[in-house]
Amino acid sequence: MTNEEAQAALDLLRKSVDEVDLRILELLNQRAKVVEKIGDIKKVAALPIYEPKREDMVFQNVLSGNGGPLSAGAVRRLFERIIDEMRTLQRERMAKEKAQ
Amino acid sequence: MTNEEAQAALDLLRKSVDEVDLRILELLNQRAKVVEKIGDIKKVAALPIYEPKREDMVFQNVLSGNGGPLSAGAVRRLFERIIDEMRTLQRERMAKEKAQ
Repeated sequence: MTNEEAQAALDLLRKSVDEVDLRILELLNQRAKVVEKIGDIKKVAALPIYEPKREDMVFQNVLSGNGGPLSAGAVRRLFERIIDEMRTLQRERMAKEKAQ
Repeated sequence: MTNEEAQAALDLLRKSVDEVDLRILELLNQRAKVVEKIGDIKKVAALPIYEPKREDMVFQNVLSGNGGPLSAGAVRRLFERIIDEMRTLQRERMAKEKAQ
């Protein structure tokens, strides 16, 4: 493979990464919107925001659905970050509502 | 809204989160496979694995494509984790190849 051929192949693969990233981003925002709806219902029904058992189920769902190449540890760390950012979003939203 | 109604609505929304999570997971694994291909080409062409400029482009791509509700900071942190886990996967893979 010449350097030019390698570069051309890399460019194509990177374009594909960028496309996948935008789809991941769209799904993350879609997930955030559903979590916002969940937060609204919990607020109306006066249910606790934080439910550790539900988080366990989230991990179980993705770990049992993981076909790799990402390891179980990687999947867990990725979804820890996802859950954490959703919680941050909820907190920001509640603070904004209180300030209004 | 009665407690039963709230619970039924939550159950539905959580089912939808679980579905979105599996789609996110699938895309993360798809991304990992493309990154593995990129690694293979870089190895053959003796190109550096770590390219900070390319990482900046990855962030630019998702930040400019973000329609919310996730904040720019959240998107950056999420993709930092994604990039980090892809790098870990590459390192594990190279260590395994060396050991063979």
